[in-house]
Amino acid sequence: MSYELAGVVDSRHALAHPLLAAVDVGGTKIAGGLADRDGGLLHQVQLPTPARGGAREVMAVVDQVLDLLARHPLWASVRAVGIGSAGPVDIQAGTVSPVNIPAWRGFPLRSEVAAHPAVDGLPVALGGDAVAMTAAEHWRGAARDHRNALCLVVSTGVGAGLIIDGSLHTGPSGNAGHLGHISVDLDGRPCPCGSRGCLEGLASGTAITRTALEGGWQPAGHDTSAGAVATAARAGHPAARHAYDRAAQALAAGIAATATLVEIDTAVVGGGVAKAGDVLFDPLRRHLATYAALPFAAHLTVTPALLGTDAGLIGAAALALPLLASPTAVAGR
Amino acid sequence: MSYELAGVVDSRHALAHPLLAAVDVGGTKIAGGLADRDGGLLHQVQLPTPARGGAREVMAVVDQVLDLLARHPLWASVRAVGIGSAGPVDIQAGTVSPVNIPAWRGFPLRSEVAAHPAVDGLPVALGGDAVAMTAAEHWRGAARDHRNALCLVVSTGVGAGLIIDGSLHTGPSGNAGHLGHISVDLDGRPCPCGSRGCLEGLASGTAITRTALEGGWQPAGHDTSAGAVATAARAGHPAARHAYDRAAQALAAGIAATATLVEIDTAVVGGGVAKAGDVLFDPLRRHLATYAALPFAAHLTVTPALLGTDAGLIGAAALALPLLASPTAVAGR
Repeated sequence: MSYELAGVVDSRHALAHPLLAAVDVGGTKIAGGLADRDGGLLHQVQLPTPARGGAREVMAVVDQVLDLLARHPLWASVRAVGIGSAGPVDIQAGTVSPVNIPAWRGFPLRSEVAAHPAVDGLPVALGGDAVAMTAAEHWRGAARDHRNALCLVVSTGVGAGLIIDGSLHTGPSGNAGHLGHISVDLDGRPCPCGSRGCLEGLASGTAITRTALEGGWQPAGHDTSAGAVATAARAGHPAARHAYDRAAQALAAGIAATATLVEIDTAVVGGGVAKAGDVLFDPLRRHLATYAALPFAAHLTVTPALLGTDAGLIGAAALALPLLASPTAVAGR
Repeated sequence: MSYELAGVVDSRHALAHPLLAAVDVGGTKIAGGLADRDGGLLHQVQLPTPARGGAREVMAVVDQVLDLLARHPLWASVRAVGIGSAGPVDIQAGTVSPVNIPAWRGFPLRSEVAAHPAVDGLPVALGGDAVAMTAAEHWRGAARDHRNALCLVVSTGVGAGLIIDGSLHTGPSGNAGHLGHISVDLDGRPCPCGSRGCLEGLASGTAITRTALEGGWQPAGHDTSAGAVATAARAGHPAARHAYDRAAQALAAGIAATATLVEIDTAVVGGGVAKAGDVLFDPLRRHLATYAALPFAAHLTVTPALLGTDAGLIGAAALALPLLASPTAVAGR
């Protein structure tokens, strides 16, 4: 009897302070977290992704991450689960086909997570990682006060997501915002995706390194990363500076296209390449003044992302937020 | 007494069958119409635009169009007015700055129409002409069964509008969908808008003529229109065929960018250039297969617009439709 009463008290506490579980699936790590309804991360765990393993092997690590989360006393307050995954995704089917996890093609991640014993019965939301990052920056980061925004992740690839009319715009399949694969150079080089002149082929970290090397930049040691190119650019190396300028030009064309097409008032740029700071943002703002020429796009601002590596988990939690009953609805039960 | 009774009967009839007044302001003509709530045009009038006239002179023609409409017996049933105008527009301020009407810069068209004696008190909606055409094709035309669509007007310029999640997406200022001024060729030729490599500079009727002439096409007479180029292309002239192929390539890059960025399932192409038929649509579909490469964009279809020259008035009426009270609300009064 007292046990049941305690159970009732616990349950009331949980309903008054419902929490969100977040899972972030990437090509190198699978992270888990517990977040409150304000986007505060209360607990985090992380395991390496067996990216070359079989489909069940990768899923076993997701299950382990959920096991670890479920051991935490706060798990009892979890009322919804959000998953952000490397894409492409299909949010209607609940499946993912991450480019960097070859064994997962049309993998039913949402139902697999829903079937975890600790998750059983909780609602589960799924989205792409760049869309999750966008949700995070809109909830708690640099896009917080904006009703229309583009949020970019520029690293080995270029991902992005859209906030339209104050809400996350996922598109029917969950892939809206794929800025990396719009053509900004219609006669440009073929892209692995099948198109040509894709923004990603000019603006990703990989592209920055290639442009710098083609221009005659030679790394001091073995570090040919975009970060090493940024260091050289900061020291005044012309080929390194040109590589960032060219990436910034392509990003500007893509951001301006977005502003011209859907009307946004800010672009938030995160990911490893954004760590170059002014080496990227100075030419980006300069080129944007050229490409975002129409008066209704001219007020567009560009700003660095604020949430860093937490964006993945906060974003996954943000995807689950709409699944929570409102406090009023809960109180009224 | 019997007069008042008749008045009551008329009023009830009007509420049961409310109509919409539509005004379509372009650089060559100012049209007016009366439409029912299903988008059927019941009455139309049209006057030439004094495009080089002063601001009041142009507005006087809009007033004359409204005068003509107001003389029709059905005017008594009009419950809202919609205006589609050559842009840019500013739907927050209610102003228009049509490129082809130089005297109107930030002209307060919405309040001017609202101040017309016959309009007095009726709600007035304003939108850009390409956005209005999009609303029309979604309401009654080729985009009717689509929840996510891009509708293009390809003529001397290239305009467009977006349907997202089943609704017209205007953007805060009303200019969303400006596909003609996204850069598909980031190193391309400077555009009068200030940007470079704009889609319009490659795909408009003007651009088609220029490309054909540059390629060695010689018109039979003095007709250097895109229509004359289409006739030559149909007869197999290589430079004329190339001109349409190049325009189609640019349109494909822009349509694919839209599909990749916001997820659309159809693109509806209207305007004078679309009259070229297969000369445009065959290469357009071929190029689209290249640029719309990602799986979630691959199901994209391209189809000709259905409403022709009526799209402007039907679209203006569509903009006013949300201003009508729902039938239930009216019946419940």
